[in-house]
Amino acid sequence: MIPPRTLRIETGTVTRALYVIGTELCVNPGRNAPPGAARFSVDSTHAVRCRVVPGIPDGHAPPGLYPLTAASVLFITMETISELANDSKLSVTFYGEKNKDLGKAVVHITAVEISLDVDADRDGVVEKNNPNKGSWQWGSDGHGAVLLVNCDSESKFRKKRDCESDYNAWFIRHPRRTLFSIFVKEFPVVLSSDVLSQEVPYLGGTSEVEFFVEGLRFPDKDFEGLVTINLSLLEPCSENFPETPIFTDKVVFRVAPWIMTPNTLKPVEVFVCCTSDNYPFLKGMRKLVEDSGPKLRVCSENMNRGDRWMQDELEFGYIDAPHQGFPVVLDSPRNGELGDFPYEELLGPDFGYVTREPWTEEVTSLDSFGNLEVSPPVVVNGKSYPLGRIIIGVAFPTVTQGRNMTKVVQDFLYAQKVQDPIRLYSDWLVVGHVDEFMTFVPAPDKKGFRLLLASPDAGYKLLRKVQEEGHGQAKLFEGLEDADEITVDDLLSNEKLQAENRYVQNCIDWNRDVLKRELGLDDEDIIDLPILFTILEDDRAAAYYPDMVNMIVLGKNLGVPKPFGPKVNGRCALEAEMCSLMAQLGLRCTFIDDFASYHKLLGEVHCGSNVRREPFKTKWWSLKL
Amino acid sequence: MIPPRTLRIETGTVTRALYVIGTELCVNPGRNAPPGAARFSVDSTHAVRCRVVPGIPDGHAPPGLYPLTAASVLFITMETISELANDSKLSVTFYGEKNKDLGKAVVHITAVEISLDVDADRDGVVEKNNPNKGSWQWGSDGHGAVLLVNCDSESKFRKKRDCESDYNAWFIRHPRRTLFSIFVKEFPVVLSSDVLSQEVPYLGGTSEVEFFVEGLRFPDKDFEGLVTINLSLLEPCSENFPETPIFTDKVVFRVAPWIMTPNTLKPVEVFVCCTSDNYPFLKGMRKLVEDSGPKLRVCSENMNRGDRWMQDELEFGYIDAPHQGFPVVLDSPRNGELGDFPYEELLGPDFGYVTREPWTEEVTSLDSFGNLEVSPPVVVNGKSYPLGRIIIGVAFPTVTQGRNMTKVVQDFLYAQKVQDPIRLYSDWLVVGHVDEFMTFVPAPDKKGFRLLLASPDAGYKLLRKVQEEGHGQAKLFEGLEDADEITVDDLLSNEKLQAENRYVQNCIDWNRDVLKRELGLDDEDIIDLPILFTILEDDRAAAYYPDMVNMIVLGKNLGVPKPFGPKVNGRCALEAEMCSLMAQLGLRCTFIDDFASYHKLLGEVHCGSNVRREPFKTKWWSLKL
Repeated sequence: MIPPRTLRIETGTVTRALYVIGTELCVNPGRNAPPGAARFSVDSTHAVRCRVVPGIPDGHAPPGLYPLTAASVLFITMETISELANDSKLSVTFYGEKNKDLGKAVVHITAVEISLDVDADRDGVVEKNNPNKGSWQWGSDGHGAVLLVNCDSESKFRKKRDCESDYNAWFIRHPRRTLFSIFVKEFPVVLSSDVLSQEVPYLGGTSEVEFFVEGLRFPDKDFEGLVTINLSLLEPCSENFPETPIFTDKVVFRVAPWIMTPNTLKPVEVFVCCTSDNYPFLKGMRKLVEDSGPKLRVCSENMNRGDRWMQDELEFGYIDAPHQGFPVVLDSPRNGELGDFPYEELLGPDFGYVTREPWTEEVTSLDSFGNLEVSPPVVVNGKSYPLGRIIIGVAFPTVTQGRNMTKVVQDFLYAQKVQDPIRLYSDWLVVGHVDEFMTFVPAPDKKGFRLLLASPDAGYKLLRKVQEEGHGQAKLFEGLEDADEITVDDLLSNEKLQAENRYVQNCIDWNRDVLKRELGLDDEDIIDLPILFTILEDDRAAAYYPDMVNMIVLGKNLGVPKPFGPKVNGRCALEAEMCSLMAQLGLRCTFIDDFASYHKLLGEVHCGSNVRREPFKTKWWSLKL
Repeated sequence: MIPPRTLRIETGTVTRALYVIGTELCVNPGRNAPPGAARFSVDSTHAVRCRVVPGIPDGHAPPGLYPLTAASVLFITMETISELANDSKLSVTFYGEKNKDLGKAVVHITAVEISLDVDADRDGVVEKNNPNKGSWQWGSDGHGAVLLVNCDSESKFRKKRDCESDYNAWFIRHPRRTLFSIFVKEFPVVLSSDVLSQEVPYLGGTSEVEFFVEGLRFPDKDFEGLVTINLSLLEPCSENFPETPIFTDKVVFRVAPWIMTPNTLKPVEVFVCCTSDNYPFLKGMRKLVEDSGPKLRVCSENMNRGDRWMQDELEFGYIDAPHQGFPVVLDSPRNGELGDFPYEELLGPDFGYVTREPWTEEVTSLDSFGNLEVSPPVVVNGKSYPLGRIIIGVAFPTVTQGRNMTKVVQDFLYAQKVQDPIRLYSDWLVVGHVDEFMTFVPAPDKKGFRLLLASPDAGYKLLRKVQEEGHGQAKLFEGLEDADEITVDDLLSNEKLQAENRYVQNCIDWNRDVLKRELGLDDEDIIDLPILFTILEDDRAAAYYPDMVNMIVLGKNLGVPKPFGPKVNGRCALEAEMCSLMAQLGLRCTFIDDFASYHKLLGEVHCGSNVRREPFKTKWWSLKL
């Protein structure tokens, strides 16, 4: 509801007024009535609706004359637009003592219809003059239009992100037709960061001007994501004076956040690198992906130049609006030899790109996106996170400062708001990635997923059982070229390794407690996987044998690093345990040999792969924030 | 409620554990039980409380032995702190087939009490371990501690704002005593922007460490105002390994916003400048202030060097916390000859100082604080603004860009949040200040105040009445040295002046409509004052005769620019009208001659004065935002 606009009238003068359909004009006739005026009458052409407050008291004489008081207000509305300028008329005649005519104020009115329109009800179609178009409200019963960052690239060659090109757009409509589009190449710039306001030609009548709008930046620490566009109608009051504003309209957009996709969403494409030495890994992955449905995309050695850490260079996500949505890759500040891959190979039509790089801070291993994960949807103490929560690894704030994920990336992730991040402690690892000790797999029961955690205690428990059952001489790493075999007996008698794993278990337990608290999990939502660690440089840890938690999840198929554990009755005890634990959830394990080409380089299957997944069915704007 | 912390135990080993009173430890005995274990028993010294889930089923034999399942959890709490390290003990014994003893895991526990405490309930006193201390919630039923920016200066000479000195502080307590203080000079730096974490000595037992905290920056565009302080307890798991975190505590402070005081609050001090030419003004002000109660402070010519615009150089406000509050001056980026006054003369013990200056933008006349006002408390469409709303003047966003209040000041004002600003259109004035066309006065009825607006229409109406009643030859500016006299007849026949005032009325009407909308006002809450304008340079306006709305409000006494209007029966018709309008509200007008020394320089009484007022009784943290 727009409050009425004050219109001044003047006795003996014709005032010209523009009237916008849907608004109300108010005249205070007492404000500059002629001296001695005690009553007034109102006359108008038929299209003009008038209402006077206070009205004429019952039995008041003469009829048709309103008493003139300081509080008298005349409200004017119209319902149809003018066909010609000044085609509606209104007059106020003032009367003094003995009903003497003291003069008349005349107004010539031109009624126009003008509104700035957007899709405020989020149904994918621009509607006319939505009463809520000027504000944003979260929730399925909320309102407010959505804007996408135009971060894809229409051209595949000599490409540039579309939003970096020289066009820009927004929406407006003169009445009636429903319009929506994001992008018309031929449209000239109307507004940009350099041109914050522009004159718009008024075409008159029922014609419309169609504007197109694109987001230029994602929400971030210094930009909440809301974009307001104002339309002002100016009227020259008389010659030689500046125009004065008589009407403004306002629409608000929220720039869609970048959203991550958890392991529980359906995989669409799997990405791996081909290197000169990773044939066994590639072979295993091909088979797994073939059995699971998604497309496999292999980044050639030409492009990756030996950098095999597909997980670390980028994170797949998406942006979504009621009218459109597409995948967007977040490029890590890591920038290894794979650094050009996201921009050169992924950015394209309907495939967006965004990156954040620190200006001065040093990039560390914690900036790789093996250290950036997202949980499935959770409810925590009654608070719902239907798009899950982002999980990153940082230093624990101890006295001696550790490594951290760089601030610009953390700021970006927090600013997206819809997957409120959780910070885990991952700096105790040499590589320092959360995917070295945790992952999520789908489950048919309970919360719809399980959190898998690496557990040295579970590892020792299993190996002691193997020993107990008489297989103490069974060997880990049997037959591997790149590793020294070791018997279960020898391993269990290594007190240094036990002490190291006691420490690692404490570090993981800290994270276990954080995850239980921040994701609202019970012990029964967590499965401990038998994995041992060892301490390498700087008192920091790495997996002792291939780290089975560092897996790729493709629906019900898991691609698990082959652990090369001790064989009991011809079967690897670690694989058997893993299969047994996962089978309870209806999941199948495929063990992939990543020993030489990944494990020895301190990574595993997950580090060496990436998955683009389908977006959530839940719409981010339906969240209650 | 802190979720339990996972504690690992190991058969055949003594584990040492620190326990924090108020928390809970949980042990999963199945996690690394010896192979073949089917049952377990729990034994402890008397201070340790144990609870096992699931419990022992009824009739289960042998008694005291729990069935060992994957889901078995042992919860441990204690209620009193340890007197000696490791003085409490707990053991878990595992049993296999035929209740064969398979080994025992022993834990030695040291119970400590530790908490980071603040005044989260906002009663001025730090309480123990408030469950809400880790978050902020607005409202009288809300919670969260308040921090003041330490922006006053304890020393009067060679001064510096205290927060720029080399100390900094925060709070912590080991149990029991209630502590609160903001500032201890002798305290060494614990945390600062350079030192984000520090080791704190643990004194043991029931001793306390007292920390002091000060705010360094006001909320602003890049700082929401929330400050979080974390305390972490680290435990060495064993020699040669890094410590692992076992407990964290967190408190949140909100930095108190800077709050402006409207005309309806009681005046404490009035500030004016003494110049070589303003004797009549000073004389009038002295008398007015004497009659009204507050203290008068005259800034000498030494300090002001001829700059008389006391309103424009600074704005008085205050900051407030449950334990303390004091006035804070906001120094304008204007920086005329009065530029040093706020820092040199006002900053002192319990008198704070803050400023915002643009780095690159040009400072314009709209950056003077005659262009920064605040409304009395209002309710707008059910939304309450118990501290009023800030009012600033800006350019109307037309195609040709106008002058604006500089972004850094606007950002600062918006970031304070508790007096949500309104932007008026003031760029149509030569000087461009909102105080040239509006002010607020207290009223005994309706909303407790009236909005006074300059109104050319009201001016013309009054002068026409004067003419009508036979005083057309009465003169404005009669007997003034610095002005040409003009008769009412001549003035009313000046069509150019009429056209100018028609334009001005349109500009003011725009603002009238904005104020009605944003402050929830009706026409009856607004009084039009008879004031004419004239167009000077750049199509911009200034008052034609002294601008009566540009007044100083001291309780029921108004210091109004003497308008030098036409005399009717020996009395100025403008003064008479003004007195009559204000008398209805129980307000007394004192007309102050500012013609030569202010009006001719395009300012008036309000521009040449400033008022420090009492703070609101309403506490800002009680607002529902």
